[in-house]
Amino acid sequence: MDKHQKWMRKALELAQKGRGYTSPNPMVGAVLVKDDKIIGDGYHQKFGRPHAEVGAIAQAGEFAKGATLYVNLEPCSHEGKTPPCALKIINAGISEVFISMIDPNPRVNGNGVRILQDAGITVHVGLLETEARHLNRGFIHYIEKKRPWITLKMAQTADGYIADVSGKSKWISSSVAREFVMNQRTHHDAIMVGMGTVFKDDPGLLPVNRDGFIPYRVVLDDILRIPPRLRLVSDEFHHRTVIVTVSDEKKQKVKQLIGSGVQILHVPGDSFGWIDLPKAMEKLAEFGITSVYSEGGSQVAGSLIQQGLVDEIQLFIAPKVLGEGISTFSGFMKSLDSAIQLKWDDVQMLGPDILIRGRLA
Amino acid sequence: MDKHQKWMRKALELAQKGRGYTSPNPMVGAVLVKDDKIIGDGYHQKFGRPHAEVGAIAQAGEFAKGATLYVNLEPCSHEGKTPPCALKIINAGISEVFISMIDPNPRVNGNGVRILQDAGITVHVGLLETEARHLNRGFIHYIEKKRPWITLKMAQTADGYIADVSGKSKWISSSVAREFVMNQRTHHDAIMVGMGTVFKDDPGLLPVNRDGFIPYRVVLDDILRIPPRLRLVSDEFHHRTVIVTVSDEKKQKVKQLIGSGVQILHVPGDSFGWIDLPKAMEKLAEFGITSVYSEGGSQVAGSLIQQGLVDEIQLFIAPKVLGEGISTFSGFMKSLDSAIQLKWDDVQMLGPDILIRGRLA
Repeated sequence: MDKHQKWMRKALELAQKGRGYTSPNPMVGAVLVKDDKIIGDGYHQKFGRPHAEVGAIAQAGEFAKGATLYVNLEPCSHEGKTPPCALKIINAGISEVFISMIDPNPRVNGNGVRILQDAGITVHVGLLETEARHLNRGFIHYIEKKRPWITLKMAQTADGYIADVSGKSKWISSSVAREFVMNQRTHHDAIMVGMGTVFKDDPGLLPVNRDGFIPYRVVLDDILRIPPRLRLVSDEFHHRTVIVTVSDEKKQKVKQLIGSGVQILHVPGDSFGWIDLPKAMEKLAEFGITSVYSEGGSQVAGSLIQQGLVDEIQLFIAPKVLGEGISTFSGFMKSLDSAIQLKWDDVQMLGPDILIRGRLA
Repeated sequence: MDKHQKWMRKALELAQKGRGYTSPNPMVGAVLVKDDKIIGDGYHQKFGRPHAEVGAIAQAGEFAKGATLYVNLEPCSHEGKTPPCALKIINAGISEVFISMIDPNPRVNGNGVRILQDAGITVHVGLLETEARHLNRGFIHYIEKKRPWITLKMAQTADGYIADVSGKSKWISSSVAREFVMNQRTHHDAIMVGMGTVFKDDPGLLPVNRDGFIPYRVVLDDILRIPPRLRLVSDEFHHRTVIVTVSDEKKQKVKQLIGSGVQILHVPGDSFGWIDLPKAMEKLAEFGITSVYSEGGSQVAGSLIQQGLVDEIQLFIAPKVLGEGISTFSGFMKSLDSAIQLKWDDVQMLGPDILIRGRLA
C-alpha cells in the first residue's frame, strides 16, 4: 500500500471514533507525519469541541514545522465555534497537506485549500475520497439536501412478508441479522419508527452497548397518540426520544411528554393531515440529525420509498415462507411499467439470512 | 491439482455431454489412462445406447491392459440393455478403477465394485463424489424417491410480487436473468407450468438452442382446458408436450390432443378433485422424467412448496417495488411459528437482479 494511503487510512480510522457525537458536524481525523513517523494525531470528538487538526498540531508542537498533514476533510477557513484550522496549519509551519475531500459546506467549499496554497503549502485533494465520502455521507447529505441520509431497513420472508397475518414479526430474521441491525443503530444519528411499531412492540431501539453513543429515537406520531407509559417515553434514555407530530391541540399531553424529558417536533401536515414527511426530515436536519435508520413497518417504509426519501436500502431475506402476511410496503400500488426502480449494490449471506443492499435508482 | 482429480474431472465433463438425452439413466463419462495419457474415453450418449465404459475400452483396444479407469458412477453389474460393464472392465485387463459414487440403483448398489475387487482390480470410491452427485441429482432422486428432482424458479420484486395487480409479469427480471433461466431449461428433463401461466402467456418454454435437446413441457391441466390452438399444442415441438390431467371425461378432447401429437398423463385427483401432485410427480418419473424445472405461477409454486415437493429453489429478486401485486405463493397461510423453513445455499448478483439459491430445510 502506498504510504500516503496508509496515513490517510489512519486519519479515517481516527475520524470514526467520533461517530455519533459530531453531528451535525462531520467526522474528521488528522495525522501529522514527519520522517515517516506520526508526530501528532487527533479527531473531532464531539460537536462544539476542537477540530481534528488542532489536536494533531498541539501534540506535535515545534516538530510540526516541515511536516505533512493527512486529513479526511478540507480544513475549515471560517471562524466558527473554533478558529479556522487553515490558519493554524500555516502558523505551525506544515509544508504539505493531503485532503480526501473538499468540505461541501458553502462557508468552506475550497476556501480552506486556497488559503493553504496562497501560503505556499503543497495541497493534494482526493486521496481515498470514496471512503471519506462514504464515512460522512450523512453530513454531505445534510449540507447538500438539507435533510438526513435515510437508511431503510426491512426484514422479510422469501415471499416478501414482514409479519404473519396476525402481525407477529418476532422474529423474521435471525439473531445474526438482528445483531447487525443493533450495530447499524450506532452508525446513524437516529432510529425512526412509526406508531404502528410502537404500539405493537413497545421497542427500546437501543444499541447493544448502552454506555456509549445512544442514537436519537424518532417516533412519527401524527396525532400524538403515544402512551407515556411506553418504553421510549419512560426509560432512562427518554431525553434521546424525539416525537414528530402534526398535532398542536393536545396541549396537556405535550406538556406531560416534555415534562418526562421527551422532545417534540411539530411539523406541518400534508393534504390528508398526516405528517408531511419531506418537511419532517428537514426539521430533523435542523435539529442536528444527519442520518436516520428507519426500522418502521409497512406504513413508514411505504411512505419513505414512495416519496423518494430513501438513500440506502438494507433488505434482509429470511429463509422462510408464510404464503400470506403483512406486506413490506403499504400505501401505494404501481403497475410493472411504473414500478419504483431500485439498484442493488451488493449482497451477502448473513447467518441464515441474506442481506441485500441497494438504493433508489 | 491431483492427477486423479484431473482425470475424473475429464470424465465428469464427458458425462455432461449426455445431458438431456440419458434420462432416466444417469449421465456417465469414462476416461482410460495409461502412462499419464488418455488411451480411450466415452460417455453415455443416450438412453438405450452403450454405457460410457464401453466406448473408452473399445477405443483403447489392446492398450487397456494395465490401464486405470476413471468413471463418475459405479460400473453396472447387471445385464440390462447392454451387458454388464464390470465384466467388460475385467476382460479388458484394466488394473485400477476410480469411481466417484456407488450407483444407488438397487440392481447395482455396490455389486459392480465387488465384482471388480473379486477379480483383483484395485477400486477407489469417492473421488469428486460431491460433484458427481450434483451432476446426477435427478437420477439419484428418481431412484431413491421415485419422483423427479424439482427445481422451483421464481422471479419477484423486492417486495415479493411476481406480477403487478393487472397480472403483468413481463418482465419482472432482466434479460440476463431470463437468459440464465433459458439455459437452466436444458439442465432439466422437463419444464412445468400450470394453466394460469398457459392462459396468460401462451409460452413456448423452449431453450435458446432449438437444434439441441428440447426438454419436455409439462402442463398441469386439472380439467383439460388447454385450447388446441396454443403454442404448446400446435408448435413444431408438440411431441415434447405432456399434459397432466385428472379429467377422464373429455374423450373427444383427449383424442384431438393426442391426434396433434401431445402426450397425456392421467393422474388421480386429490380430495378436491384437483391433480394429486405427489402422484403426478410419480407418474412423471415413471414416464422417464428425472428432473423438473417449475416455471409456474403462484398456484403451482404454492402447491409444490406446501407439499414439500421442492428440491431446489432459484429465487430472483428484481430491483423493483410495486407496493401491491400478485404474491409468489398462493393457496396457504402460515403463522410465523409454523412458517415453511428454507435454507439458503448461496447468492449472487445476476445482471441487475439477485439470484438466491436454496432448498427446503
